[in-house]
Amino acid sequence: MPVRLATTESDFAARFAAFLATKRETAEDVEQVVRAIIADVAARGDAALIDYSRRFDRIDLETLGIRVPQAEIDAALGAVDAETLTALELARDRIAAYHQRQLPKDDRWRDALGVELGYRWTPVEAAGLYVPGGTAAYPSSVLMNAVPAKVAGVPRLVVTVPAPGGVLNPLVLAAAKLAGVDEVHRVGGAQAIAALAYGTETIRPVAKIVGPGNAFVAAAKRLVFGRVGIDMIAGPSEVLILADRHGNPDWIAADLLAQAEHDPSAQSILITDDASLIDAVAAAVERQLKTLSRAEAAGASWRDYGALILVRDFEEAIPLADRIAAEHLEIATEDAEALAARITNAGAIFLGHHTPEAVGDYVAGSNHVLPTARSARFSSGLGVLDFMKRTSLLRCDAEALRALGPAAIALGRAEGLDAHARSVAIRLNPDHA
Amino acid sequence: MPVRLATTESDFAARFAAFLATKRETAEDVEQVVRAIIADVAARGDAALIDYSRRFDRIDLETLGIRVPQAEIDAALGAVDAETLTALELARDRIAAYHQRQLPKDDRWRDALGVELGYRWTPVEAAGLYVPGGTAAYPSSVLMNAVPAKVAGVPRLVVTVPAPGGVLNPLVLAAAKLAGVDEVHRVGGAQAIAALAYGTETIRPVAKIVGPGNAFVAAAKRLVFGRVGIDMIAGPSEVLILADRHGNPDWIAADLLAQAEHDPSAQSILITDDASLIDAVAAAVERQLKTLSRAEAAGASWRDYGALILVRDFEEAIPLADRIAAEHLEIATEDAEALAARITNAGAIFLGHHTPEAVGDYVAGSNHVLPTARSARFSSGLGVLDFMKRTSLLRCDAEALRALGPAAIALGRAEGLDAHARSVAIRLNPDHA
Repeated sequence: MPVRLATTESDFAARFAAFLATKRETAEDVEQVVRAIIADVAARGDAALIDYSRRFDRIDLETLGIRVPQAEIDAALGAVDAETLTALELARDRIAAYHQRQLPKDDRWRDALGVELGYRWTPVEAAGLYVPGGTAAYPSSVLMNAVPAKVAGVPRLVVTVPAPGGVLNPLVLAAAKLAGVDEVHRVGGAQAIAALAYGTETIRPVAKIVGPGNAFVAAAKRLVFGRVGIDMIAGPSEVLILADRHGNPDWIAADLLAQAEHDPSAQSILITDDASLIDAVAAAVERQLKTLSRAEAAGASWRDYGALILVRDFEEAIPLADRIAAEHLEIATEDAEALAARITNAGAIFLGHHTPEAVGDYVAGSNHVLPTARSARFSSGLGVLDFMKRTSLLRCDAEALRALGPAAIALGRAEGLDAHARSVAIRLNPDHA
Repeated sequence: MPVRLATTESDFAARFAAFLATKRETAEDVEQVVRAIIADVAARGDAALIDYSRRFDRIDLETLGIRVPQAEIDAALGAVDAETLTALELARDRIAAYHQRQLPKDDRWRDALGVELGYRWTPVEAAGLYVPGGTAAYPSSVLMNAVPAKVAGVPRLVVTVPAPGGVLNPLVLAAAKLAGVDEVHRVGGAQAIAALAYGTETIRPVAKIVGPGNAFVAAAKRLVFGRVGIDMIAGPSEVLILADRHGNPDWIAADLLAQAEHDPSAQSILITDDASLIDAVAAAVERQLKTLSRAEAAGASWRDYGALILVRDFEEAIPLADRIAAEHLEIATEDAEALAARITNAGAIFLGHHTPEAVGDYVAGSNHVLPTARSARFSSGLGVLDFMKRTSLLRCDAEALRALGPAAIALGRAEGLDAHARSVAIRLNPDHA
């Protein structure tokens, strides 16, 4: 059964701290294996990809080819039923519209001393998107990762996706096509990450790798970080719902279960000031679980990691919410806006009774790749900036350097960096050569 | 002697690739040691900090105290000579002014379907700045890391700095005070990173850790990443200068040496279309080395990693510069702006003959913490955004959910996530409970 806490209990602080510290994942130690795979792909290229795919995915890429032909991608799109296709197109267009507004502006100015300053944003030259195989191969995740890259202007966007037994999810191919992905390669695991980082004959290297994956993929991303950029390492999903006595127990239960069905390690938390809502929601969850296709995962998540927390008032809830730093925060209270304004740690906030988190997962337009495991304290959801980098710009003319130079010389000397000082002094007074 | 390459040589492509692949750092394998230190600090707190500082820094923090008293910081500022103080204040003010312009704007809008969308930026609740001891303890680096955090609005900014033998660099304390740092603790190494990530009795934990350090510090940052945010792992510094026949060999040599003096692993590269400039610069470097206080480091860097590259024209230089992806790029050619516009991979670009990189290191206002080791292909210099995170905001009313809901339901079902679909459907039609 989910844990029940109340701030009125004398040991609440300790129980809440213990709840926060609960580990929901056991990190498999796969680093040595992954390190060897990466070195092998870096050394042998396509031949290594063919070997690993034969072993891990039971697929002969020597015959089938590593790159998925355009005709196969087109056929997958053609086979999508009309309702799903319309929904995917709506999602694609709304994600694009939302992320367009994130495009950063360049800046350039001349200050009072005549120094020209500024910065400029440019897209990375190529990005790789890892798409997991199996049950976690979601077309919505393809859109959420690929569309912001294309909005950023990334000229080359590469998808790698394992095809165990030769099978690719046609919805993943369709989403890749809709998002404007340039290449799809049927390779997965640490070997796919290695190929994206080091390049092979078929897969040219990229500058940035994004997308979720299993323990091998996560370890590979950590190991290639530095050679290429990576996004966050995604953990199991979580939702925190703040609701008062106006909350609808059935709706809240449905939202808690929508999170829980992802994974037995997912986490769903309700904080309320209404003791009777806690009982009503707990009962609704049990009722809804009975008719849920993924009842096993959802039930395990709710039983092992679910929480029902009673507070005296929402003033008490604010610091708790900031400590939980939830990936998804739903606020269904009387003055949801005012409460939202005072909580700073959350990946995304869903306001009011009619905003189930699932609309954000699919079609609202905001990104569903969000910081998990309390990392909303210091990181943000995926966005356009993840596919861009900023270059600062600086220009002095002789006069500006005369104004600024003496201070640079003073600091260079104070730090014992005489060549720094000289590089300025030599321009102000040729005798300094 | 520095390597000399020319694009006219038949084996240029291979030699350039080999040059790019040259490793300038050997990563010490300190992970096991660091892992143990972190676990110990997490378990024993201040007592562990006291033990490690006694062992590694020969200092008794039990007597002296972990936190540096405000009076000691004030005294350090009071002891700074007038010229250095004025220069530090100028740098602080210019860094603040530059970074103010990076403050991101929140956004909130209602779209055609009546869906309210947006996002909001907030500062991290606390940040830690690691400052190395010894020769690399630069007051300018304190300003470059601390001022953007304060501009971002970080309410609690903590400096940790080792005090080997009890000695702290007074300029570091002065810079911390000028930048508005809230706490300074005299502890360094992996134990300082552990304290910032896990907290001790004296040092409360932070959400983000920035700042350069040795192999132990870098390994500790990698290990605590995920629990807290970290900035990039800094490598040895580098400069690429593009210059034509109008380039002044003495000025170029001074700039190459300003980079080289940092560290024997630093790298200085000249690309030019003028063969005679290469000879003149090489001679000027040798001449200037003779009178340089840090001639040993600068000479080693220039000899081992320096490069002089001759191109037919600057059209050829553009892809080379993008592949080098230099931390610092100086462009001293006839049409520097046009060339700069076509090079996308660089941490910072210094335009024209009168913009030595050293003004950017100290007083221009742009940040001197920049991506090294080719990471300018995918990452940016330190800035205000590194101390903030973005929360997305979403609000539907009943009508907006009716417009958007069916597509979310379709995608939830297409992905086999029935509880997702139900969380929307239950609000549109109560029979779905």
